[in-house]
Amino acid sequence: MLEKMTAINSHAPVANDDCPSREIALARWASNASPSAVQTMLKVASSPEVISFALGLPASELFPAADYCQAVKQVLLNDRHSLQYGPPPERLKAQVAELMKARGVSCDSAEVFLTAGAQQGMSLLAHLTLNPGASVLVDELTYPGFRQAIEPFEPQVLTVSTDLSTGIRTDEVEHLLKQGVRPAFIYVIPNGHNPLAVTMDLAARHHLADLARKFSVPIIEDDAYGFLYYDTDQLPCLKELAPEWVCYLGSFSKIMAPALRIGWVLAPPKLAAKLAIVKEAADINTGTLAQRALAVYLDRGVFSEHLTNLRGEYQKRRDAMFNAVMRHFPAGTRCAKPISGMFLWVRLSCPIDTGELLRVSLKTARVAFLPGDAFCGRKSGNQGCMRLNFSNCTIQQIEDGVDRLASVLRQALLMNLQGNYSG
Amino acid sequence: MLEKMTAINSHAPVANDDCPSREIALARWASNASPSAVQTMLKVASSPEVISFALGLPASELFPAADYCQAVKQVLLNDRHSLQYGPPPERLKAQVAELMKARGVSCDSAEVFLTAGAQQGMSLLAHLTLNPGASVLVDELTYPGFRQAIEPFEPQVLTVSTDLSTGIRTDEVEHLLKQGVRPAFIYVIPNGHNPLAVTMDLAARHHLADLARKFSVPIIEDDAYGFLYYDTDQLPCLKELAPEWVCYLGSFSKIMAPALRIGWVLAPPKLAAKLAIVKEAADINTGTLAQRALAVYLDRGVFSEHLTNLRGEYQKRRDAMFNAVMRHFPAGTRCAKPISGMFLWVRLSCPIDTGELLRVSLKTARVAFLPGDAFCGRKSGNQGCMRLNFSNCTIQQIEDGVDRLASVLRQALLMNLQGNYSG
Repeated sequence: MLEKMTAINSHAPVANDDCPSREIALARWASNASPSAVQTMLKVASSPEVISFALGLPASELFPAADYCQAVKQVLLNDRHSLQYGPPPERLKAQVAELMKARGVSCDSAEVFLTAGAQQGMSLLAHLTLNPGASVLVDELTYPGFRQAIEPFEPQVLTVSTDLSTGIRTDEVEHLLKQGVRPAFIYVIPNGHNPLAVTMDLAARHHLADLARKFSVPIIEDDAYGFLYYDTDQLPCLKELAPEWVCYLGSFSKIMAPALRIGWVLAPPKLAAKLAIVKEAADINTGTLAQRALAVYLDRGVFSEHLTNLRGEYQKRRDAMFNAVMRHFPAGTRCAKPISGMFLWVRLSCPIDTGELLRVSLKTARVAFLPGDAFCGRKSGNQGCMRLNFSNCTIQQIEDGVDRLASVLRQALLMNLQGNYSG
Repeated sequence: MLEKMTAINSHAPVANDDCPSREIALARWASNASPSAVQTMLKVASSPEVISFALGLPASELFPAADYCQAVKQVLLNDRHSLQYGPPPERLKAQVAELMKARGVSCDSAEVFLTAGAQQGMSLLAHLTLNPGASVLVDELTYPGFRQAIEPFEPQVLTVSTDLSTGIRTDEVEHLLKQGVRPAFIYVIPNGHNPLAVTMDLAARHHLADLARKFSVPIIEDDAYGFLYYDTDQLPCLKELAPEWVCYLGSFSKIMAPALRIGWVLAPPKLAAKLAIVKEAADINTGTLAQRALAVYLDRGVFSEHLTNLRGEYQKRRDAMFNAVMRHFPAGTRCAKPISGMFLWVRLSCPIDTGELLRVSLKTARVAFLPGDAFCGRKSGNQGCMRLNFSNCTIQQIEDGVDRLASVLRQALLMNLQGNYSG
């Protein structure tokens, strides 16, 4: 047994018997972690009386449930290994590579790494790139799940602002890089930005890709909404513009169904080689029944039509919501009609506390949304802002909900003028 | 823009322009990470000509595929939200709580946290408890996925030895704790130990639970094989003996099907509250189609019979393998007949390099197994040891495979005596 004792050295944490612990100790970051606004709203907004514009949910009634059911049946009854451990299905990787071609990105199926959704891709990349003391660079307002993914590594979060017409301020990114700052990566959502609803313009894409190359700084391109573009043709992916510096995150959650938990990463070779290792640590990295069934579904050749229908329907809902906001919301409200994604970003004419507004709206009008502050993790200059989702309500619900929300808002503005509302 | 510049402080990593990077930099731990023996073998052993005793695979032909297919169909065609984001299904949590009662653990469904398998539970708990500089305490030989789960946090790994009759050496654990060592947790596999095949005896369970309480040290109880016990009644879970200090990991992978990716964690309240946060960061923490379908399958009331059949069949395979090893392997080979799990742990009479033996066996006999060294991540005192899985082969394959392996072994021993084999 003495031999084992050599395993202990002076660095091993030792007891502090003056203060015996009465419960399991949490890691530092975990002690401070609290549930996200999204998780809280998932419960609140699931009540059938609530019209919810709160979450990034796709339309349940548009899921190809019957076709997918056929695919599951075919897999389960014909392949005795469909429920077994095994490598992720090659066929699905090849199909994803084909999908990427449609997005303008040329890649081989061997470069496709399957994940349990874009969030997992983000989390795995954070594991692979964040050393203690690292920094990351991100829009000031961004997807809260990104902050969650990096939180266990406690990086320094550097922020730049977002232009609501062109996307992330690449001039600010350049300024930081020229100062010598070297983040572990820059995280961006070029299409259907969450929550700002902006799509990066072509010039900004080229500028950012050039910066990545020039300063050797990696980019995580979160393209969860990339297949949901409206009015115009799609713009090139950053992955296409700077393949060696971009890790691309794709997802079937918004275009097929979230409960399948299937997404993918395209990463440069050195990183790609490590993805299987870190995913094995996270959840074994085995092919799932959902992946095998999705491959069979995609082979039926109906997905492209499904995508076209989805875009058409979401475009109608976007128009309905945009028009309703323009019609019902108080004068001075600013909102751009997004050309991709699932959200509107609404800026009210005065800095009313939209967190408080949400509480009142849920209580009196039964309408849910997410306040601007939910996207930066603190009270910021985003009072008076809200994110509205348009994909998960019918046009009738959108029109009713926006009307009801506008009434609450007018009431709130009146009270605000009277000094009863915290601004 | 100046306002944003305040985000930069002296701690931000800066460029070293003398040495511009030509590719994306990896985190320190990731640079050294290499694929696991298990992942490598998953490819090698999937060749149809190979008889594989290498991996912890359940029997494909015993998956209740048709019944599960019915359940998927019922869910997909009757519940329009079955493919949507949503909280993990309450019904499945209640069913897991019932299963835990059968394992002697009394818990409420609210205490059940659903994961994508036991590996994810392990990874989430590592995230929640490992501060920089932490240590963990574990058997010297253990499940390689555990080391992978903790690797990104670079903890110090303290090891104790395992008694092949009673399990983890709790006297060694006590010695360390008395010295003042305080690991973030102790990781144990009390049932069907992987790879040592031992089941902790009652006295060791009580001793370890007492130590956890006395020294305020948490235990992660990996019970992935807990429902697979043979010959005797099951022994109490550590979770039953010290509920406030034990995080229990359960899994449907070995008793239902791995490709569903469903497991669970039972954790004390303070930790349990954080699990949803860390899982949301990892993969959104939404209810999956597989979870919803499993709940419907379990409601059919056939699972208990399925489990009984599974235990019966695995018991036969264990007996066949144990008898074949006793019959064919060279004199002096030591192997105990395990009372739980999926493995035999075989110790040869001389310290032959079983890694080299594996290469020869694959080439000349087409039989795969895992060498002892695969379970400690280094050359150790485990030359001459091998792990054999008995759940994933028919009795005929087991008898043929052990016979063929024994021939390779006799040949190798002969060469070893002649000095041609590295010992």
